[in-house]
Amino acid sequence: MGIVIEKAKVVLPVYESGKYVKSIIKDASVYIEGKYIKAVGDEAPAGFVADEVIDGTDRLVIPGMVNAHTHSYMTVFRNVADDLSFMDWLFGTIDPLEGKLVPEDAYWGAKLAMMEMIRCGTTTFCDMHMHVHQTNRAVSEAGMRAVIGRGLVGGLEDGKVNDAGAVRLAEALEEMKDGEICDRLNFRLAPHAPYTCDEGFLKVVAMLAKEKGYGISMHLSESVAECEGTQENYGKTPIEFAESAGVFEVPCIAAHCVQVDDKDIAIMAKNNVSVVSNPASNMKLGNGFAPIQKMLDAGVNVCLGTDGAASNNSLNMFHELSLMTLIHKGTGKTPQCVSAQEGFAMATINGAKGLGLDAEIGTIEAGKKADVAILDMNTPSLTPHNNLLAGLCYSANGSEVETVIIDGQIVMKNRKILTIDEKEVYSNIDRIVKRLELDKKEY
Amino acid sequence: MGIVIEKAKVVLPVYESGKYVKSIIKDASVYIEGKYIKAVGDEAPAGFVADEVIDGTDRLVIPGMVNAHTHSYMTVFRNVADDLSFMDWLFGTIDPLEGKLVPEDAYWGAKLAMMEMIRCGTTTFCDMHMHVHQTNRAVSEAGMRAVIGRGLVGGLEDGKVNDAGAVRLAEALEEMKDGEICDRLNFRLAPHAPYTCDEGFLKVVAMLAKEKGYGISMHLSESVAECEGTQENYGKTPIEFAESAGVFEVPCIAAHCVQVDDKDIAIMAKNNVSVVSNPASNMKLGNGFAPIQKMLDAGVNVCLGTDGAASNNSLNMFHELSLMTLIHKGTGKTPQCVSAQEGFAMATINGAKGLGLDAEIGTIEAGKKADVAILDMNTPSLTPHNNLLAGLCYSANGSEVETVIIDGQIVMKNRKILTIDEKEVYSNIDRIVKRLELDKKEY
Repeated sequence: MGIVIEKAKVVLPVYESGKYVKSIIKDASVYIEGKYIKAVGDEAPAGFVADEVIDGTDRLVIPGMVNAHTHSYMTVFRNVADDLSFMDWLFGTIDPLEGKLVPEDAYWGAKLAMMEMIRCGTTTFCDMHMHVHQTNRAVSEAGMRAVIGRGLVGGLEDGKVNDAGAVRLAEALEEMKDGEICDRLNFRLAPHAPYTCDEGFLKVVAMLAKEKGYGISMHLSESVAECEGTQENYGKTPIEFAESAGVFEVPCIAAHCVQVDDKDIAIMAKNNVSVVSNPASNMKLGNGFAPIQKMLDAGVNVCLGTDGAASNNSLNMFHELSLMTLIHKGTGKTPQCVSAQEGFAMATINGAKGLGLDAEIGTIEAGKKADVAILDMNTPSLTPHNNLLAGLCYSANGSEVETVIIDGQIVMKNRKILTIDEKEVYSNIDRIVKRLELDKKEY
Repeated sequence: MGIVIEKAKVVLPVYESGKYVKSIIKDASVYIEGKYIKAVGDEAPAGFVADEVIDGTDRLVIPGMVNAHTHSYMTVFRNVADDLSFMDWLFGTIDPLEGKLVPEDAYWGAKLAMMEMIRCGTTTFCDMHMHVHQTNRAVSEAGMRAVIGRGLVGGLEDGKVNDAGAVRLAEALEEMKDGEICDRLNFRLAPHAPYTCDEGFLKVVAMLAKEKGYGISMHLSESVAECEGTQENYGKTPIEFAESAGVFEVPCIAAHCVQVDDKDIAIMAKNNVSVVSNPASNMKLGNGFAPIQKMLDAGVNVCLGTDGAASNNSLNMFHELSLMTLIHKGTGKTPQCVSAQEGFAMATINGAKGLGLDAEIGTIEAGKKADVAILDMNTPSLTPHNNLLAGLCYSANGSEVETVIIDGQIVMKNRKILTIDEKEVYSNIDRIVKRLELDKKEY
């Protein structure tokens, strides 16, 4: 299948030594063959046959966004637990509700999440949760790219992994086999957090990751309570705790990292740990603001994620991007930090790098997989068509996304998602909500 | 003309002594006759004839949002000056560009602004700028409701208003006559700021307002530099300065109020000053975060505004609402401040109150003007249909708005704006951008 996006404005973040050298190519075409971008420019590659021509007039082509940390099927709990203390949120509402989910609920929740992500130009997401087979099935059908981690909690008892840990680890390894049937699925080991995995268990997970060549994805330094806990139990910050357990000896993506000091940042920089910042969730749950500018100054690879819909409550990466590029100007009282270029890189190439996929996705370049979003520039938010990188961060809201291509397949065309039956998803979500009696709650 | 929105979910903020008593009515119809809401509920008012029936199934009806502070035609400078210091932004880029505008440019810029506002459910805005006749003409044609203030700068020389002040005051009074041809136009006197209006001039403006019964709209306590200036020149904070000049003796809406202390807040509460917070602009220009929770605790009427597109860069009130309900949870490190209910009130009834229009607009109640937005709930962001007030703040992005009615007139239907020729606006903005050579700037 050959697809050409003809004569579009193309945002193309090109790097040399980690820096942008050119951010926008004007009036270029993007040639896609099979799963790959074959050429970007004026001329079709030799022998190229276009089965589909997409008019690029007044269209902006961007690399598909990479949502580097989410819990996709928590969409079923969107807007059920807001303006609550962290403990009331987690233990009073979300945790008891999660216990009532049956595996198939996760399938529909993941589909709803993917509808939201595709509609807003996200093509890859990194997930951490249970019911992984259900999510894998949904990803496989919806055509998205994902990095999946079965959330692990556990501990050592008498020198052996306890039942909770053993069951989850076995599930994680078994679920990875789904990668054989869909090559858009990638996997990581995903120890949940320092307060749900003890030191011994974490060492076992890290060692397994090292032996088998898996990356790790983990929540780290999210709340003050978590930091107090690791200090009390181990005399370490969460980052020091993870380092000492060997977590950083494999490619690691650390979600949140709000409560980190200079020493923590230096540890992450030294170990090439990628940080996934989740600004909406961190504010909404009262955890505060991650010191992003310090991380950038230290050379840490910062990625962007939405977290789950139970705490964000949106999976729209444009919303997250606007937060990322606005809030640190407020906390730092300077307009000259976390620039639009830096923010957009976090939402694309940095996320790809964090997930070990930067050779494949994250920019629009010949030889990469064809994961792109096409935006309508004839919208108030992108008019005038001036600094389009600034537009993507500060004025776009995601509704400009018109067409999305993932792995060379058109998954959304002119705002219609082709790979998901949206009505079917809405009706199933409605059924789940009624079964859980969420519709009877008074607000 | 009779319009009925049949069997919709209706968000209806009803107040008793300034508090919500019921926020949502389910499965109710909204009956509109002429400019007014005639009834909300199950039964049509006597003699009601529906010329237009809007199906309310899976639709959410909200009061049209009130953007209580903007500079509408600055849309022509959207995304031209980002990630710059305040001085480079204002004097290096925006100010010189403003000098190149001809009056008609303001007309097209205001139309572009109204396209963006209507698309995202805003029905009323409060403007401060020059070229007021042009904005008035655009408002009149687009069908929006507006409170217009010609920006005043000036001083006293030898006990008399100087030329700059006199010219602008005369223009302001003359421009108010446009209200005779369009009753959706309201006016305020709009002294620009403490650093552009001296004490004597401000007293003249305040006295005129008191004599003639005009309200005042003014920038106050935006930047640290402004506060240093009023301390140096008058030994007062900007709020004390405005109070002493008599500004608060008439209904006053004060934009920004970022750099205010407890004493300032007490002055504003005592004088019933309404504050318009502009979170995106305040962060983006590095001014920081207004102490909103303290203002709410002191009983100040807090409204919400986008500021202009040169500093925000968006006029989407849903974006602003999400910022308002998120950022203070981050700065205060508590999820339990600036709730969804409080935020939504700021975006609607509080704004109406600040502009002196709360008897007319800001809620959906029989007897009020019919200014409403109808949202599609079959969108990922509002699914499941749980806590819809939370949904409006935390997950909606504005693209859910499908139909907008202002003053009983349908101005947008199924996402098509009926009162503005959008293509004509885009082509005129393009012409203006080319004349100003903004398209030649490299980013």
